[in-house]
This record gives sequence, C-alpha cells and structure tokens, in this order.
Amino acid sequence: MEKSGNAAVPAGEHPEQVVYGRNAVVELMQSKPETVEKVYLQFNTSHPKLKEILITARRLKIPTGKARMEKLTELAGTAKNQGVCALITSVTYYGIEEVLAAPRNTAPMLVILDGLEDPHNIGAIVRTAEAVAADAVILIDGKGCPVNATVHKASAGALSHMRVCKVKSLVKSLDLLRERGFQVIAADMDAEKNHTDIDWRRPTALVMGAEGSGLGSETRKRCDAVVRIPMAGCVESLNVSVATGVLLFEAMRQRLG
Amino acid sequence: MEKSGNAAVPAGEHPEQVVYGRNAVVELMQSKPETVEKVYLQFNTSHPKLKEILITARRLKIPTGKARMEKLTELAGTAKNQGVCALITSVTYYGIEEVLAAPRNTAPMLVILDGLEDPHNIGAIVRTAEAVAADAVILIDGKGCPVNATVHKASAGALSHMRVCKVKSLVKSLDLLRERGFQVIAADMDAEKNHTDIDWRRPTALVMGAEGSGLGSETRKRCDAVVRIPMAGCVESLNVSVATGVLLFEAMRQRLG
Repeated sequence: MEKSGNAAVPAGEHPEQVVYGRNAVVELMQSKPETVEKVYLQFNTSHPKLKEILITARRLKIPTGKARMEKLTELAGTAKNQGVCALITSVTYYGIEEVLAAPRNTAPMLVILDGLEDPHNIGAIVRTAEAVAADAVILIDGKGCPVNATVHKASAGALSHMRVCKVKSLVKSLDLLRERGFQVIAADMDAEKNHTDIDWRRPTALVMGAEGSGLGSETRKRCDAVVRIPMAGCVESLNVSVATGVLLFEAMRQRLG
Repeated sequence: MEKSGNAAVPAGEHPEQVVYGRNAVVELMQSKPETVEKVYLQFNTSHPKLKEILITARRLKIPTGKARMEKLTELAGTAKNQGVCALITSVTYYGIEEVLAAPRNTAPMLVILDGLEDPHNIGAIVRTAEAVAADAVILIDGKGCPVNATVHKASAGALSHMRVCKVKSLVKSLDLLRERGFQVIAADMDAEKNHTDIDWRRPTALVMGAEGSGLGSETRKRCDAVVRIPMAGCVESLNVSVATGVLLFEAMRQRLG
C-alpha cells in the first residue's frame, strides 16, 4: 500500500498508517475503500475538494471526523496535509459467515464490541479473546475507535492470531447469530443475573457496550440474558477490558469442566 | 500545597501536580518530602544546583529520573523550568500495619504491584481491587510509574476509596505478611498450578509483576504458590490488569461460596 510521506505517530492516537493530502486520499478511497478506517477533515473549511472528499467518503460508507489543523498535523507528521488525513488498516476483516463456517470451538464464542472508544481496551480485549481461543472479535463499522497501531500494540501480537469482523449493523448481526443458535449475552452492571449463573458452554455471542454509554435498547431486546459481575466495593463498574476478561475466563472455567 | 505555575499536562504522562524550578523543588523536597513522587532532572547537565538537588533527593529517598528538556517543558508547561520538575501526589499513603489493624475483610486481600510501568494498568487494577473490596493496593517505592493523574483517571474514582501503601522493600513486606499469616500468591504464566486450584479464602497477598519483566527470584522464594491462568490460544500472557481482574474475581467467587 502506498504511503504518502513518513507520518510521525503522535502519542494520543497511533494509526496503523496514515495517508494525507487531497489527491492521495481521494485516490485511496476510490481504489481501496475497504482499507480506509476513517477520514479526518479540517474543521471549518469550505474548500470544494474537501467537501467532495466528504461526499465521496459518505457514499463509500467510510467513517469521517472533523479535526483541528494541529491534530491533522500530528497525524500526518507534517503541516502540509491539505486539511485531510486517512487512517488505513492492515487488518484483514472476516465476515461472520466465514467465521461460522470454520469455527475454532465446537460451541463458538464471539466477542462483540459495541463502539469502544479506547484503543488500549480494544487491544487488551483482543489479547484476552485470543488467550481463551475465542472464535472472533466483532466490531461495529464506523462506531468507536478504529483498529490502529495502539490497538495492535495493546493486543501484544494477538491481533495477528484473532479473526476480526466488522459489521454494518449490530442488530442484524445479533438476529443472524440467534438464528444460528447462539445465545446473546450482554454485560451490564445493573443486571440482576450474575455472570456465574449463565451456561457459557453454549455457542455464545458476548456483547460489551462502550465505556460510559452501555447497552442500547435494540441490543437489549435481542439478549438472551444480561449479566452483572457481582461486586463488593464502592465503585459501580469495572474497566471494560477487565470485565471482558472476567466474563471470558468464567466461560473458559465452565468449558474446561 | 504550593504549586509553581499552571503546568499544562501533556498526553503521555499526567502527573497529579508538578512543581518546577530549582528553588521551588528544593524547598518542596525539604518541607514535604513524602509528597514528592519523583524528581526529573535535565540530561547531561553539570549545573551545581541540579547536582545538589540530585544528592538531596537521594538522601531523602525520593526517586529521580533523567529527562530531555522537551519532556521537562511538557511536564512543567513551560520551558522556564530550570532543568528540574517534581511530580507531586495527592494520595494519602497508608502503612501496611495501619491496613492490618483495620482490615476490610475477615480474611484480608492485598494486591501488590511490583513496579508496573503503565498508569492505565495501575488505575484499572485499583478500580478492580476496589470492586472486590480488597484491603489495600501496595506499591513499591521508586519502582514503576508513580500515582499520577492518569492513574487517578483510569481508576474511575476508585483511588479515593482504596487504601494505597507504598513500601520500601517488597521482600521485607512479604516477610512481614507471611509472619502475620498471609499466603503470598504470585502470578506467572510459566507456573504449573492453575489459579483455580488455590484456596483464595485465606488471608492473601497477591503479587503482580511488572509488564514484561515478571517475578524476581527473591520474590518467588517468598511465595506460597505461583499460579497461572490457563489459556487456550496462541498468546502467552494477558494484559496485567486483565490478569489481576481474573484472579481477584476467582478469589471473590470462592469467597462468596
């Protein structure tokens, strides 16, 4: 893949690769739209080419965001970015059908992340999912943090072993999985059922909501169970990657007998 | 506490508070040494006052580090830092004896972090420790990341509820705890015993080694058991905050019956 310039990667956001410049981004979106995680455009600009890029990105269903020039300069590693940067992924995404056609477990385990914002959390969850030999991690297209270099690093290499799916609609995916015999389990600290009271040996799709926002109502309707991790202290919730770890290892404990 | 100037807090390291300038740091070290987490001094300088600061810090057993001027400018929020910044804590540290004198649990649970480097991990572990109502989190003085604003934020408020100890010597603390009837359990991915094969209902000190470096030999000698979390995938270890979560919730599962 062509890379325009050597982008210095800033501390806050580590994209896997960055392409910047109006023509470079247009060309990339048109030739390999599936590799573009997100396009960042400069705030408050009426440049016709940037508007065209925005329209093209929307047509191709590529997520977009507005950013200040400082941010774009950080991402691109240069101020000469012409007000646009594209984040590129090196991840090969799988379809859910592909995963189900070649499951890793007799009773597959899928981990669905509904728009997590923190790349450290996503990476740590991929690492944990791989550690329990889950079948795939499923992300929602255009929602939450894209798979960038911070996710790669936080996964400690697990991203190379774990299948990752990116789906357009969480609700449709849950409907599909339920049709295929999966139980859908979501975590919510207000739930009444404890996570140890679930039979995790069944084919399971575990849905983890985003930091802070939690479960949507349409998601909740499609859950066979919403579970809590019983806690004893003053805090009301766990870090989402810790919570996912506790749930997946409870599943593994049950599955090992 | 006096604060010299409004320090802009950079992305990479969020100290709780920063004092900079040679005289300000000397005065702070002499008046309130217990509040100073760490003193950063400029690389490659032979300024006599900076040497004096280094000697004073060592005498007072305050951890020191060398930093480039750019880093100091980031920490201080100004280039006018005279080559020295002190990170200050707002945490009230407890002694182990204080914690043991007023335990939260009949069979206390202590979480010892042996020099963790990532403030997100320390914060997430404090949050988890509070969620299981552990008795204290114990840090090693001068080893690993100090309790800074990133730790506070990652703890999601738990740092206000959880007692934190800072000990000079891990080995001496483990000897003390063993004398007081604690079992010392450490986690290591190469261990033979599974974490589910431990009786976590006893008074327990759980030792978590630093990211990457693992357990020291003197620590290992003092362990009643070293345990692994059994894994099924290709990756060899978990994120340390996820691993701590899995262990503490296994303890809680056993303790709840």
